Amino acid sequence: MENFNFYSPTDFVFGKGTENVCGKYVKKYGGSKVLIHYGSGSVIRSGLLDRVKRSLEAEGIPYVELGGVQPNPRDTKIYEGIDICRKEGVDFILSVGGGSCIDSSKGIALGYYYDGDFWDFYGTGKPVEKALPIGTVLTIAAAGSEGSGASVVTKEEGMLKRDVGSDNLRPKFSILNPELTCTLPAYQTACGATDIMAHVFERYFTNTPEVEITDRLCEAVLLTMVKETPRVIADPNNYEARANIMWAGTVAHNDIVGVGRSQDWNSHKIEHELSGLYDVAHGAGLAVVMPAWMEFVYKHDVDRFVKMATRVFGCELDEANPENTAKAGIKAFRKFLHDIGMPINFEELGAKEEDIPVLVEKLGIGEGRTGGFVSLTSADVAEIYKIAAHASL
Amino acid sequence: MENFNFYSPTDFVFGKGTENVCGKYVKKYGGSKVLIHYGSGSVIRSGLLDRVKRSLEAEGIPYVELGGVQPNPRDTKIYEGIDICRKEGVDFILSVGGGSCIDSSKGIALGYYYDGDFWDFYGTGKPVEKALPIGTVLTIAAAGSEGSGASVVTKEEGMLKRDVGSDNLRPKFSILNPELTCTLPAYQTACGATDIMAHVFERYFTNTPEVEITDRLCEAVLLTMVKETPRVIADPNNYEARANIMWAGTVAHNDIVGVGRSQDWNSHKIEHELSGLYDVAHGAGLAVVMPAWMEFVYKHDVDRFVKMATRVFGCELDEANPENTAKAGIKAFRKFLHDIGMPINFEELGAKEEDIPVLVEKLGIGEGRTGGFVSLTSADVAEIYKIAAHASL
Repeated sequence: MENFNFYSPTDFVFGKGTENVCGKYVKKYGGSKVLIHYGSGSVIRSGLLDRVKRSLEAEGIPYVELGGVQPNPRDTKIYEGIDICRKEGVDFILSVGGGSCIDSSKGIALGYYYDGDFWDFYGTGKPVEKALPIGTVLTIAAAGSEGSGASVVTKEEGMLKRDVGSDNLRPKFSILNPELTCTLPAYQTACGATDIMAHVFERYFTNTPEVEITDRLCEAVLLTMVKETPRVIADPNNYEARANIMWAGTVAHNDIVGVGRSQDWNSHKIEHELSGLYDVAHGAGLAVVMPAWMEFVYKHDVDRFVKMATRVFGCELDEANPENTAKAGIKAFRKFLHDIGMPINFEELGAKEEDIPVLVEKLGIGEGRTGGFVSLTSADVAEIYKIAAHASL
Repeated sequence: MENFNFYSPTDFVFGKGTENVCGKYVKKYGGSKVLIHYGSGSVIRSGLLDRVKRSLEAEGIPYVELGGVQPNPRDTKIYEGIDICRKEGVDFILSVGGGSCIDSSKGIALGYYYDGDFWDFYGTGKPVEKALPIGTVLTIAAAGSEGSGASVVTKEEGMLKRDVGSDNLRPKFSILNPELTCTLPAYQTACGATDIMAHVFERYFTNTPEVEITDRLCEAVLLTMVKETPRVIADPNNYEARANIMWAGTVAHNDIVGVGRSQDWNSHKIEHELSGLYDVAHGAGLAVVMPAWMEFVYKHDVDRFVKMATRVFGCELDEANPENTAKAGIKAFRKFLHDIGMPINFEELGAKEEDIPVLVEKLGIGEGRTGGFVSLTSADVAEIYKIAAHASL
């Protein structure tokens, strides 16, 4: 196990009706003027935004609003948010929505105190010294942004998708009410589930030996997703399954399952170019990329893929030929994704094989390499896109 | 799943050599005058205390010292600590030791701001509104106090063992260096491992349905302990196994594996009277009590015990008679405890069957009931002590 720091100070408030205490939590964490940041009209139509406003009003906390965050959130909205916060004297951002909305809020939060362009922090590793405090009211189990210090934003000019990470961006509190996710369409639910599983896999595939505790914690989240996801696809109103998925999504990404070990994150990088170029859902892109990545890299550590196959997907161990077990695990994962309604190849995703050189170019590895489990060249990435393009069950 | 709050703001610093940054962390969390609180002479002999002092001195932070915390920490030491902190103007407690030392530090921390007797908070549910900040340098993987808001203290008069819990008692930071645990004798190591597993079982045995994610997280910790404990018993210097156990011990008790579900805690209560009366190690007492408790209650929810048996101890499911599987799981647990060198009955522990009425009396249930999984009467508890007295493999 490697040395590590783990710091997850977010105050999680989980369960039915919890959005009604968001005003109390804004107050607890020092907010006196709030920007309510949200995405589409669904939070208006569902009445959620009204409940949030009433909760703020009950505490006497004034607010301004900025809606319209798009999936794969854009830099343009963040500039707008920074301007509003500065003009209006906002000292707390309340993010009402999913990962895109929270990631956009984090962009505003870090840009607020920075004299230059907030984009300077994205994809550069520039450390975030100071940021406005954030609270979230989560509406989809997926990104894990409600419990993480990460933010992924797309620059409209060139559709570049880049990320930043800092403990200073972890939300002060996050309100997780599984009821709010019951109205999600099956496709979005499945995209979220795929994203959650991908967050675990990016950590599961490590070169650090002797990390049984985090291996087992990773498998705990994956096993939960394998059990609960089909249940919510079959019955969107299954509160219990929604609740299990929602907490699994947070645990998957606050890094408690990933500390003390090298991590990979190539599937996310490779996917980001797909959702950047085609504006498809991140989870759908991951469903296409991740098994393809697995097929390309599994020979690097067959034992680890055997572990996934036997412990997570219940494959039987082929002792004479463990590679068969590894391959069976990857196949089982792709089948699982297909069964919950995810695309598994370029055609189903709406991507084009002829764009592969563009995707590789935008990823920007050049002559270098990327990734923590297997270090990939541009040619390797092109090969993974090719596998993804043609994948079948 | 039940509604819940989860707030674990402790900054964990894990790995080799990390005690040398404790001064930096005291500074980060606002300490300007420190009480170094520790237990036996082992932290002096090992040179750990010197390294801690040098780290404080490097940051220019003055300190006073209070050693001599006993296992099953006493109220008398806490009164002493409160006096010192008040007289010396201490604003931060640095706890260098195991669970007893940290629990004693928490007693001092909450008593510091309280005009009355600090004991008022123990066993009463009186809320802790304010406490001195604490940091820890952990020397044994066991109690989980380094990541929890709990403290258990024994009142010398009558040897009463009582607890308190509050998020305000969670350490600001905890330094976890598995190297520091390599010198522990096998018996203490096994006691610690038993305590860790007990912390999970107290949460695992729940009446809340549909809690797959926390079930699986519980099992993740238990599976890790089943694998890693025999390795450190066989080879005390196995850093990797020590590291897995140390992080498992923290995860077991910061409540991430227990949120959203009813919990039990009867085994801890029943054990506390044993270690209170005989001053035996808490973990050793748990090894005797917990399987006996399981044998007494398993019929309440055979399925859950089958889950433990099959998922954690690898027992085969007897479909025709699942009770057999449940019993096999309990047997496997007791065998595991015996194999790592733990006592499994009163004689091995050094307890006496004729004291059972005294133990029950001290527990103080009277005509009432206690516990979250199966609600027990005084007669039930007597029965469990009797099973524990005569247990064999």
